[in-house]
Amino acid sequence: LINVCILGNGTVGSGVVELLNKNRENIRKRTGEDVRIAKILVRDINKHFREKYFHLITNDISEIWNMDVDIVVEAMGGLYPAYDYIKGFLQKSKHVITANKDVIAKYGDELSKVADRHGVCLKYDASVAGGIPILKPLQDCLAGNEIKCFYAILNGTTNFILSKMYNEDMKYEKALEIAQEIGFAEANPDSDVLGYDSARKLAILSSISYDSRVFWDKLYTEGITEIDEIDIAFAKKIGCNIKLLALSAKEEEGIYGAVRPAFVPFKGKLGMVSDEFNGILLEGDAVGQVFFYGKGAGKLPTASAVIGDIFDVIENKKMRSVSRAENEAQIITKWQKNSDWFIRVECDEVERVIDFIKAKFGNITAIYPDKAIGGIVAFILEVENEIILDIILENLQGISGVKKIKKTIIIDL
Amino acid sequence: LINVCILGNGTVGSGVVELLNKNRENIRKRTGEDVRIAKILVRDINKHFREKYFHLITNDISEIWNMDVDIVVEAMGGLYPAYDYIKGFLQKSKHVITANKDVIAKYGDELSKVADRHGVCLKYDASVAGGIPILKPLQDCLAGNEIKCFYAILNGTTNFILSKMYNEDMKYEKALEIAQEIGFAEANPDSDVLGYDSARKLAILSSISYDSRVFWDKLYTEGITEIDEIDIAFAKKIGCNIKLLALSAKEEEGIYGAVRPAFVPFKGKLGMVSDEFNGILLEGDAVGQVFFYGKGAGKLPTASAVIGDIFDVIENKKMRSVSRAENEAQIITKWQKNSDWFIRVECDEVERVIDFIKAKFGNITAIYPDKAIGGIVAFILEVENEIILDIILENLQGISGVKKIKKTIIIDL
Repeated sequence: LINVCILGNGTVGSGVVELLNKNRENIRKRTGEDVRIAKILVRDINKHFREKYFHLITNDISEIWNMDVDIVVEAMGGLYPAYDYIKGFLQKSKHVITANKDVIAKYGDELSKVADRHGVCLKYDASVAGGIPILKPLQDCLAGNEIKCFYAILNGTTNFILSKMYNEDMKYEKALEIAQEIGFAEANPDSDVLGYDSARKLAILSSISYDSRVFWDKLYTEGITEIDEIDIAFAKKIGCNIKLLALSAKEEEGIYGAVRPAFVPFKGKLGMVSDEFNGILLEGDAVGQVFFYGKGAGKLPTASAVIGDIFDVIENKKMRSVSRAENEAQIITKWQKNSDWFIRVECDEVERVIDFIKAKFGNITAIYPDKAIGGIVAFILEVENEIILDIILENLQGISGVKKIKKTIIIDL
Repeated sequence: LINVCILGNGTVGSGVVELLNKNRENIRKRTGEDVRIAKILVRDINKHFREKYFHLITNDISEIWNMDVDIVVEAMGGLYPAYDYIKGFLQKSKHVITANKDVIAKYGDELSKVADRHGVCLKYDASVAGGIPILKPLQDCLAGNEIKCFYAILNGTTNFILSKMYNEDMKYEKALEIAQEIGFAEANPDSDVLGYDSARKLAILSSISYDSRVFWDKLYTEGITEIDEIDIAFAKKIGCNIKLLALSAKEEEGIYGAVRPAFVPFKGKLGMVSDEFNGILLEGDAVGQVFFYGKGAGKLPTASAVIGDIFDVIENKKMRSVSRAENEAQIITKWQKNSDWFIRVECDEVERVIDFIKAKFGNITAIYPDKAIGGIVAFILEVENEIILDIILENLQGISGVKKIKKTIIIDL
């Protein structure tokens, strides 16, 4: 008999309870083991007294701490006390499964080592891209590859907002409001809309992909709050969609890592990832391009990943640590590859800007938004890397009448 | 020290040799084990005397049979002697990794049981969809899901031919010729173009998805040899692409399984899988839709999957058997779901056909090909299932002057 305790009974926790009960027979058939939910930790016990599993509910962690538990599923979210509980149970030689990207992005390396030392598993497949199988395929199936780069949509909330803005010509504020109403965005949406959530997942994916320690707060992170209807109109004009991408590439000098809005071809793989879906396009030296798509969040998709981890624990498959490297990765925040960039300039005199660009680059085609919006011009520049681009834009900024410059990378995949 | 022997030195075998040597340090770092290629079995030893690994080459299976080998990689292809070698080595308690869909589709169930009995692993991740991680994610990450259906492009050769026909208005024969020239198609292309290769992979995927024994020769199998430029023109007119799909669905009465050409929206996930790429769109009850995309064949993509299996064997992760079910699945070859079908009718009088259809279904929009091609009309019918469709088409066939009717399913995903 395998006793499972679940910490938290919110979206993820209740999904795990539901799916685990549904899979008991399945688990017994496949592994020969009987799985039982032994306890569910909640914050406020009074909220749950009408529920089917009320007899399993407790608000006292010490009850779980002192019982005979085999697997602990941490589904509380947030850094604390989740981190302390995970660490504590690992130190008591209990297997821990978590969907908590905050904890893994910050403490994954340390916690993996604690798990190793105590001979138990720490699994966190649900922490990145929800139900999409990505961490395990990356670690197992693609283990023979050197990962060269990946471009991913890892945050469903922002992708939902951008889809509304793009497909329904909605303003950011209105789209955010709808996302909050239907529960895709939280009351305080900062972690999603400012790109932090994507950056945490990017750090976890990068650590595994390149087997080196990548910390999310070292990555360049830009959210979607500055995207307006003019950007959307420009994107449409050049056959692109706007997506908040988590970009990563192994470069000679280190690992590039950034979360930033990007233009992607409307018809491409990333361009067609819409609404709350996630997508990960990665490139390995042997396998070439591989693309994964699915629901990156939500009750049952996330629970699906947790149940996959439970199967692994029972079948005693160990997950590779977030990283076994001793040294922290050298992080690069400027894009190193030759790329097209979309440049939008707000200025008093568009002609002067165009003259400057033409003098420097020859016949660049400039586009203007609708006549109604004066003083804005945009064009596409192909440059060798972002450092060179920044020098050009600095010169451009020096032209009198130039008020604001916005650069958006174009990922042509 | 782990001794690996590779049976076969063609595309897959030589790719495995190359990638395994490249990954030796990687494997040592991750698993602490030193991997060595001990022997490579070839057919004609004289062809290889200039090669770097000539000292490892033998054309005598008994040499490998009698040596101290830990893992055997079968990369010969074809049913025999591959099946005998795989079985023999498993019975000698050697781990076997194979990319051979012919053997797995026919003997996977039996061989999995042999492996189980002898306490070793039989792994075949490379047998379906080449480098795309699919079998393991399905078995591990998605283990908590009931798989409801999947729609997949599993044969790169036919997808390449169809892409040429669609994108370059090329005739089937010419596209096949090019595929043969660049090595995507074999001199005898039957296994690919008649859909047998796809059906074998579909059987393997179905067996794992539904945990029941599915034999490929029970599946409905239709190839691409009947697709002509008129079909392509029709597809384009309704915003669709033509793909050879491996279709599978769990129905009340059994498992639907068919390989057949289908119309898919040009902009959808399956519609954008072009050239030699593969794509698998599956639906689980918890995770919802998940999509996998990548190279389904080729030297290094296939080797990538084999190396993934080698990591698994060394880390002692057992693959689930193709199926543990004792009973063979009940196979359904008629599509059970409500769907649109594209119907093309060759006839003497198109008006008579349209009158029949309109009398039966009301205002159906018919399309005609270019004026130059007389006597062909096509329309889209929505029907409850394929059995009802067949009755309608039988009636249609009864109309005087109707010469040939072709039905193509439209998968709107």
